[in-house]
Amino acid sequence: MPGEFDYLDWLRQQTPPADRVLIGPGDDCALLAPSGRATLITTDMLMDGTDFILADVGGIRVGRKAMAVNLSDIAAMAGRPIAAVVSVALPLYPLVGTTRELAEDLYKGLREMADRFGVPIVGGDTNSWAGPLVISITVLGEPTGTGAVRRSGAKPGDAIFVTGPLGGSLLGHHLDFTPRIVEAQRLHAAVELHAMADISDGLTADLAHILRESHCGAVLTERFIPVSAAAVSRSVQTEQPPLSHALSDGEDFELVFTVSPESAMKLRTDPPIPGLVEIGECLPEGYWLFDGRTRHPLTPRGWVHQV
Amino acid sequence: MPGEFDYLDWLRQQTPPADRVLIGPGDDCALLAPSGRATLITTDMLMDGTDFILADVGGIRVGRKAMAVNLSDIAAMAGRPIAAVVSVALPLYPLVGTTRELAEDLYKGLREMADRFGVPIVGGDTNSWAGPLVISITVLGEPTGTGAVRRSGAKPGDAIFVTGPLGGSLLGHHLDFTPRIVEAQRLHAAVELHAMADISDGLTADLAHILRESHCGAVLTERFIPVSAAAVSRSVQTEQPPLSHALSDGEDFELVFTVSPESAMKLRTDPPIPGLVEIGECLPEGYWLFDGRTRHPLTPRGWVHQV
Repeated sequence: MPGEFDYLDWLRQQTPPADRVLIGPGDDCALLAPSGRATLITTDMLMDGTDFILADVGGIRVGRKAMAVNLSDIAAMAGRPIAAVVSVALPLYPLVGTTRELAEDLYKGLREMADRFGVPIVGGDTNSWAGPLVISITVLGEPTGTGAVRRSGAKPGDAIFVTGPLGGSLLGHHLDFTPRIVEAQRLHAAVELHAMADISDGLTADLAHILRESHCGAVLTERFIPVSAAAVSRSVQTEQPPLSHALSDGEDFELVFTVSPESAMKLRTDPPIPGLVEIGECLPEGYWLFDGRTRHPLTPRGWVHQV
Repeated sequence: MPGEFDYLDWLRQQTPPADRVLIGPGDDCALLAPSGRATLITTDMLMDGTDFILADVGGIRVGRKAMAVNLSDIAAMAGRPIAAVVSVALPLYPLVGTTRELAEDLYKGLREMADRFGVPIVGGDTNSWAGPLVISITVLGEPTGTGAVRRSGAKPGDAIFVTGPLGGSLLGHHLDFTPRIVEAQRLHAAVELHAMADISDGLTADLAHILRESHCGAVLTERFIPVSAAAVSRSVQTEQPPLSHALSDGEDFELVFTVSPESAMKLRTDPPIPGLVEIGECLPEGYWLFDGRTRHPLTPRGWVHQV
């Protein structure tokens, strides 16, 4: 960044002390105390014009989203986030305000989301350039309970659940969602989660990742898919059915997971979190949507409405 | 990336098994086995047009540099690198070749540098956009020997060393340097390193970071500053003296460190690595360059040639 503003120095002043942080921003690396547990690591990069429109939404919401999408990956494995590092390429000539104001707004959003989950920002790399805003975050975490929940543990006969309504995230939810960190840990403590992923690419696509890793198939029941109000609004714009948006839209950042029939019974009768919806069942093979009469093939790319 | 090329899947196929990697690319996070040691974490982002000119140097050298600058931060604390994650924003319309070819070249360079130090690439996030190439890497490491070497331990009376010749890195060294991982560990094993940093911003600037963190000053002796051949070549272009380039040019990625007078004696008589040069001494305060007659003030921004 040009001249007088030392972002790293400022970052250091803002960073609250955290138990696990032995060395925070200021050295060549940050240093975290050993936990004795394995380390989860995830990274996500967001770009202006692709993942958000900076001029429309402002730096605070961008910061919030950038942190939240990374935390969502930790949630997807039922992990506990420990620390984050943040790299940014700031536009030298933002459409609104100055580079420094943008840096501060970004940081406010980052901090707000990180604080909700007690995650210290322990380091970073701040750059400026003539290009659009790019922000890349890496979050470290640790497994909880019986260990990290993977994508590869689904079994034929498993019940498939999602944690909330789906579709139309583009209308705003993708900027303001809450990563399901707490929900994942409660589920993980309540039942044995066979496989889990966060819904970033869209329900059919992310469930397809689980099925591929688990070498099994699935059938979803159309009437059980939780269609969000935003999916309905979006369908008015696109003239696609709301169900199509619920199945295919990305960035809902709810969780999709599978459990045994016994665990499913437990989740139905004594749900550890609100909003759980059972949407289908794992099969030995195939990928289907059941409409009450017949089953139609699903593709990993999403669902094509059959006229 | 558009369509058929699944970078993460490909990455997974290429990633050799590594002892500490319990889960590699393919899940929402990677998972590293616990080491019982503290965790170093560092991140650096590089942008086309700022840190390299992609059309001139090609993807392989960019990949190599992007990995090397991050490893250099681990070296700066005498750490051992454990794992890396890589985020990229690939240009949809590269000036040379296709997006996929660029992705493969980048990966070749990343892998080549990472392999030299046995560092597995355990995850990442691959994007494409209409903008220039951006690559952001996070490297995890662990301290070696008596622990991580910080910037804050320099003391008045300490001797100041650098690990090699300086200046003119822009002529090519900044793309092809070897991060001083091995050298740092050997030094750390041989003597007590009071403070250390890698030279990314330039000798005077990076030493100033050490002095600021250590609350002390320093005097450098002009004739001991190791001026690289590239600094001499560069001085022909810029009409600045070679010494000015050695003091101020960034991206040499040698190490600058301070040790006690006793340790300095040991390093002089029995150097654990070749190329060590003693360039000055820490003082209670001030920042100076001694020309053999008088001392001239240095600023953290670099050295301004006195006509």
